[in-house]
Amino acid sequence: MSRPFSKRFLRCGALLFAVVPALAFASETGGVHSYASTFLWIAVLLLFARIASLVERVGQPSVLGELVVGVVLGNLALLGFRLFEPVKTDQFITFLAELGVVILLFQIGLESNIEKMRKVGVRALFVAVIGVVLPFLLGTYVAGPWLLPGQSFNTYLFLGAALTATSVGITARVFRDLGKLQTPEAQIVLGAAVLDDVMGLIILAVVSAMVTAGAVSMGTIAWITAKALLFLVGSVVVGQLLAPRLGRLFSVIHTGVGMKFTLAISIGLIFAALAQFIGLAPIVGAFAAGLILDSVHFRYFRDPHVVQDVREAVETLDPVVRDRVMAAVRPHADRHIEDLIEPIGLFLVPLFFVVTGMGVKLETLFNVPILLTALGITAIAFIGKILSGLAATGTRKALVGWGMVPRGEVGLIFASIGKSLGVVDDSVFSVIVIVVIFTTLFTPPVLTYLLKREPRAGMRAPAAG
Amino acid sequence: MSRPFSKRFLRCGALLFAVVPALAFASETGGVHSYASTFLWIAVLLLFARIASLVERVGQPSVLGELVVGVVLGNLALLGFRLFEPVKTDQFITFLAELGVVILLFQIGLESNIEKMRKVGVRALFVAVIGVVLPFLLGTYVAGPWLLPGQSFNTYLFLGAALTATSVGITARVFRDLGKLQTPEAQIVLGAAVLDDVMGLIILAVVSAMVTAGAVSMGTIAWITAKALLFLVGSVVVGQLLAPRLGRLFSVIHTGVGMKFTLAISIGLIFAALAQFIGLAPIVGAFAAGLILDSVHFRYFRDPHVVQDVREAVETLDPVVRDRVMAAVRPHADRHIEDLIEPIGLFLVPLFFVVTGMGVKLETLFNVPILLTALGITAIAFIGKILSGLAATGTRKALVGWGMVPRGEVGLIFASIGKSLGVVDDSVFSVIVIVVIFTTLFTPPVLTYLLKREPRAGMRAPAAG
Repeated sequence: MSRPFSKRFLRCGALLFAVVPALAFASETGGVHSYASTFLWIAVLLLFARIASLVERVGQPSVLGELVVGVVLGNLALLGFRLFEPVKTDQFITFLAELGVVILLFQIGLESNIEKMRKVGVRALFVAVIGVVLPFLLGTYVAGPWLLPGQSFNTYLFLGAALTATSVGITARVFRDLGKLQTPEAQIVLGAAVLDDVMGLIILAVVSAMVTAGAVSMGTIAWITAKALLFLVGSVVVGQLLAPRLGRLFSVIHTGVGMKFTLAISIGLIFAALAQFIGLAPIVGAFAAGLILDSVHFRYFRDPHVVQDVREAVETLDPVVRDRVMAAVRPHADRHIEDLIEPIGLFLVPLFFVVTGMGVKLETLFNVPILLTALGITAIAFIGKILSGLAATGTRKALVGWGMVPRGEVGLIFASIGKSLGVVDDSVFSVIVIVVIFTTLFTPPVLTYLLKREPRAGMRAPAAG
Repeated sequence: MSRPFSKRFLRCGALLFAVVPALAFASETGGVHSYASTFLWIAVLLLFARIASLVERVGQPSVLGELVVGVVLGNLALLGFRLFEPVKTDQFITFLAELGVVILLFQIGLESNIEKMRKVGVRALFVAVIGVVLPFLLGTYVAGPWLLPGQSFNTYLFLGAALTATSVGITARVFRDLGKLQTPEAQIVLGAAVLDDVMGLIILAVVSAMVTAGAVSMGTIAWITAKALLFLVGSVVVGQLLAPRLGRLFSVIHTGVGMKFTLAISIGLIFAALAQFIGLAPIVGAFAAGLILDSVHFRYFRDPHVVQDVREAVETLDPVVRDRVMAAVRPHADRHIEDLIEPIGLFLVPLFFVVTGMGVKLETLFNVPILLTALGITAIAFIGKILSGLAATGTRKALVGWGMVPRGEVGLIFASIGKSLGVVDDSVFSVIVIVVIFTTLFTPPVLTYLLKREPRAGMRAPAAG
């Protein structure tokens, strides 16, 4: 097993090294506006991500490999190797990465079951509330004053706010990579993370308003809250209204896969855009769209050829035999809408995780006082979310709690808004970045360990290649 | 279909003006970069393209619908409806469109057969040479002096050069939409268009050097030519060397579709980038990559489930019956690499054609003298390419000739380089744009007509939805 593995690794590596001189050449030229270097970067990042995802062979989720390879590529400059620096400023790569995480949450919505989520709804709500309130209070009133003495209360407010929002992408990928997306724990975490994002938005808006205006009216808080709730409730209602119409529409469309693909992906993108327009993260909209599309008679479309070919092969046989064969064939003639979205995901999702990893600045770890402060706040960030898992009664609470831990890019958004408002200085910013690094990089292996410790249900995790 | 759609659109617009205050200052301070409007535009363009592709129902290729809907959306501003104007300046949409045409030529390379192309190679070369030399001479020495009197010889040189390069994307889509990509005519046109691009590049480089330096050395011409030939010959050689290795590599990979997808699309993108680095169009590289990957034992990977399920269903039957059923099932267990690339194409390719259509400025048609001049030059542009079809002995010459007609974005690149060098003024630029419009928009219906007139071979054009 290990020999073909390493051979394969070497060959992919050889391909990559053939490309490196071209990259050097690419960065030299560039008089004419061309997308050639972006095309090349996409290919290189995808190849690295794919090689890194071979950590699956040792039982780790591929997202971990993608993140780590991103951290390595993004910090090679520390060793004087600056070849990959242009990726960080390539706006098209950044865009594709953002599109990638939207596609990922859309896929996860498609794979999630709205009924299952409803069943875990109350527990998800409790998890979300505890997972927002606890880190916020701990950050603002404990970690801030104790570990960052001398800063203003507004700074502590932002620190607390930055600890609230779960970055659902990483947890969802881990559950998905290990084939556990259908477990109640995964559904609770997904539901709680969406609610989390809504509450995080409200906190961010309120805290920002407090910092800017010195105070904030109840009316503003109410308006922000109302809009966010309206979107989620609206999505569900629109989805319920639209679902049967779409189902009927789809059953009369015979032009092949194109129309279904276009409708599905367009709905995902429109919901992502709508979410952002009202101030939520686009991934929340994409997830909602996936949930809605999953719940309709929309998932299947028939590829009639296999059915027809086999029917011709068995038509002279005994009817009982015929029916048995046809019953075996028919399920394979259905292709899920997920199958069509999958290549888009294979193309774009790894870019998101590699780019996220590349954004990690390892040099922030070299400042010992900041690192120690960050470790303390990380502990609080861990504790706040892990305790929220206690609300997930009847499930494996530790799994839910750890699933809520990653902060990822959401925490970074909070930190950068705080920085732009002047209440988060460079050292606090570094601290938040380190917390994000730790919560992001430590969670996948812990979750994997917890998921593997689970009593075997006779089901092996499928390869999520 | 369009009514609920535009309603949704207006709602989005309304939402745009009601953004949360927090988000507003977030984007002001640069904390959050929003891709929401781009996501929305992608969805809107895809939906319009998909609706427009319903022209398939009346026997027209969907690319025609996509181009026309692009022209309509791009010129609504003439009626005072400026809603779609931002699309033209959205750099991410432009990027995705460029990526789309690269994917399209990669797909077409995958679907093309290198052996078949070799068989038509000599004829393709003749078609390409005539199709470059004739329009160049006609443009420079006939159309220029006669229809645009008083301009400099350099201007005529650029006009002639702008008439040389075939835009293979449009023709290839028409052949593909109508299921005729495997005909000798299609293979000749594809081969000739690639050679065309190489010769067009050489002409452009030489003509630019002549304009800039007043003269050009034979050494420069030789170097430009050598680079281009080296790339194509190099691609084929590298492809032949790599093919068996890749084939072996792929046969030992068991991690599912991910690795194969990543390798395939990465090779396509790397070749596209390499082509651009040496001065060729990226689509030439993508096409070459597709051709190489098509020729290896690379296309298939097994989905064992259907085979296994059916085998279980028939295992107690008579061996002869069993073999017959299994023979009917097995081909369907193979999925082509094309199937995996297809959704990427469905996502990105329509964007290219809609965006190309949107770039057409209908107002240039309103200036009657320019329009008449343009019509004259268009006639010459048509004649030059149609006559090149005469070299395609043993095939339907008119089909090959018309297949070479579209100029598309390649002609526009020539025109804009000429403009930046100061030898192409606004009126000549408009003329070239109009020629591009006519060659681009008139060719699909003519080709469709010619393809439909073909004696029926008992095969219906498959729906290319």
